[in-house]
Amino acid sequence: MSDVSLSEVLVRIRPTDAQAARRARLWQRRLTKPPGSLGRLEALSIQLAGIFGQERPQPRGKTVIVAAGDHGVVAQGVTGYPREVTAQMVLNFLAGGAAVSVMARHADVRLVVVDAGIATELPSHPDLHRVRAGRGTADISGGPAMSREQAEYSLLAGVHLAMEVAEAGTDLIGTGDMGIGNTTASSAIATVLTGRPPEETTGKGTGRTPEELRHKVEVVRRCLLINRPDPGDALDVLAKVGGFEIGVLAGVVLGGAMMRRAVVLDGFISGAAALIACGLCPTARDYLIASHRSAERGHRAVLAHLRLRPLLDLRMRLGEGTGAVLAMGIVEAAAACLSEMATFKEAGVSDRALRRTPATELDH
Amino acid sequence: MSDVSLSEVLVRIRPTDAQAARRARLWQRRLTKPPGSLGRLEALSIQLAGIFGQERPQPRGKTVIVAAGDHGVVAQGVTGYPREVTAQMVLNFLAGGAAVSVMARHADVRLVVVDAGIATELPSHPDLHRVRAGRGTADISGGPAMSREQAEYSLLAGVHLAMEVAEAGTDLIGTGDMGIGNTTASSAIATVLTGRPPEETTGKGTGRTPEELRHKVEVVRRCLLINRPDPGDALDVLAKVGGFEIGVLAGVVLGGAMMRRAVVLDGFISGAAALIACGLCPTARDYLIASHRSAERGHRAVLAHLRLRPLLDLRMRLGEGTGAVLAMGIVEAAAACLSEMATFKEAGVSDRALRRTPATELDH
Repeated sequence: MSDVSLSEVLVRIRPTDAQAARRARLWQRRLTKPPGSLGRLEALSIQLAGIFGQERPQPRGKTVIVAAGDHGVVAQGVTGYPREVTAQMVLNFLAGGAAVSVMARHADVRLVVVDAGIATELPSHPDLHRVRAGRGTADISGGPAMSREQAEYSLLAGVHLAMEVAEAGTDLIGTGDMGIGNTTASSAIATVLTGRPPEETTGKGTGRTPEELRHKVEVVRRCLLINRPDPGDALDVLAKVGGFEIGVLAGVVLGGAMMRRAVVLDGFISGAAALIACGLCPTARDYLIASHRSAERGHRAVLAHLRLRPLLDLRMRLGEGTGAVLAMGIVEAAAACLSEMATFKEAGVSDRALRRTPATELDH
Repeated sequence: MSDVSLSEVLVRIRPTDAQAARRARLWQRRLTKPPGSLGRLEALSIQLAGIFGQERPQPRGKTVIVAAGDHGVVAQGVTGYPREVTAQMVLNFLAGGAAVSVMARHADVRLVVVDAGIATELPSHPDLHRVRAGRGTADISGGPAMSREQAEYSLLAGVHLAMEVAEAGTDLIGTGDMGIGNTTASSAIATVLTGRPPEETTGKGTGRTPEELRHKVEVVRRCLLINRPDPGDALDVLAKVGGFEIGVLAGVVLGGAMMRRAVVLDGFISGAAALIACGLCPTARDYLIASHRSAERGHRAVLAHLRLRPLLDLRMRLGEGTGAVLAMGIVEAAAACLSEMATFKEAGVSDRALRRTPATELDH
């Protein structure tokens, strides 16, 4: 298992279970509620049935894998924030003081913090997983972020992390990121893989001046001109304009799909990672749940390309996996309603009118 | 306390604590995240600080009060569903088989099930609260739903329920409803109190034919013509075109506000109840959190009138308090982030750039 190759992973990702999904769809109609009245929770429950291969899914463990890495492109003044913040925030995750730490504690979600390639090496910590592919990426405005070998290493590290948490009892795997500069890399990835222009994949973030945004768009454009990543080769895109944490998260998506677990995507960076993963294996998409729509501009293009509709839209743009943690309660509720609600027959509730006009709803 | 009068309740509802809210707003800026990056959770946390009068609120107990009642207007063929379903679903709530039961179990939310005036009397059950104002309302297309005394009785019953759960340790009080026919009553209330025409306050629900919807709109119009409820007198509106469960839920809103608890509204019916409550006491509005936007058409007008923006939009239209339960996790997360996150100083995270350009975000 520890020496599984990327090509093996891609082959082992199978479609979700259409028959379980079909049975779940029929079961939904027997439950004591007007058909369709749980809205998007119903389709979500059917997706979960397909993922887990169970007509009545009961997902148990919840884990968010937060991968951190640094980015050479910060030298281009695309962030205005010191690179050290990446490492400082990772220590904050470990100490339990970050937003995702607080949310995860309250939502009974396990956090797995991963150093995927921070510039400075952190002191060892029992909860810090090291899968460092380097000391931050190279500046993608001047050449590739990393070698193809490093890209593959990051992906496989993510696959293994997903396998580990799945084997430890996690059914819902969330993704999260930390990396000063990683929206620039993600915008570059999104531009290549969605085919949208950099203006649509690059966000300004609140408070960035129009000049700063224009500069960032120009940097993204330069990264693509210099590197010419091949849109038909997602590994090339990751190596040319990606990031170590983005590679790990793309691997988490692949590993989660291979293990038949639901992968709950956080925001824009996680979306860029999912573009890489689905570029390598389009089937992985069916295991994805989009937790929220980020306020970061490019996320819209990413979600549209992946044909994912986010569960939440709360104007969040923090990353870290905060959206994924928030949405997990909704995912659990969707599964629980499908699996635990009484049927009309069991509860002795009249579905007379429902039978008469099947598409009509109870008026309550 | 048990003999508190409605006028006393209205006097005891005080504005939320502006100073605590102001301190919370300042505290938010010290936390280890880009200012504004938690999006709507930040404003929500500040509202909670104001409600609880705590700079760092820590809401603990969660309860949803689900009130059920029957409606004479079902005789007008506005539902197509047998009235018995109200009582059958209440038994389903008590047995734990309904959607709200399942969701509440998973989210650690206590359910309080209330018979506010079901047509048939149910066998007694330890978890069933009886505050019956009658055996269902009269047909509002031919006259008032109930007497002014019954309306006041329902309201005060709701106030007392809110006081009880607040005293038992509940900080987040959710509302939920069950009552075949109650969308018609809610549409009538919404028409009077928002000033929008019945076409905008009356929903078809999936599967209702255009003819059925036109008929329902006509019934709503007739209810208002016959009863002429006074928009300046919310108690009159409740008595003329309301429902027993709607009165109880309006009372829950008032009692929750009086007790300085956050009231998490479910969908359309709960929204109509909030219109009644805020008609009696506009200050109550500041204690309200809109959990979700229902797919029921009239909910949009209700939320706009109350100036509430829902947290979720999942195309749900079930009622029962399902939206309220789902949103409570988000409300808790908002409070927890404000109260438990580390500050930049505590965590040793650089806020250098934040100080330089205060409105700018960390780029991650």
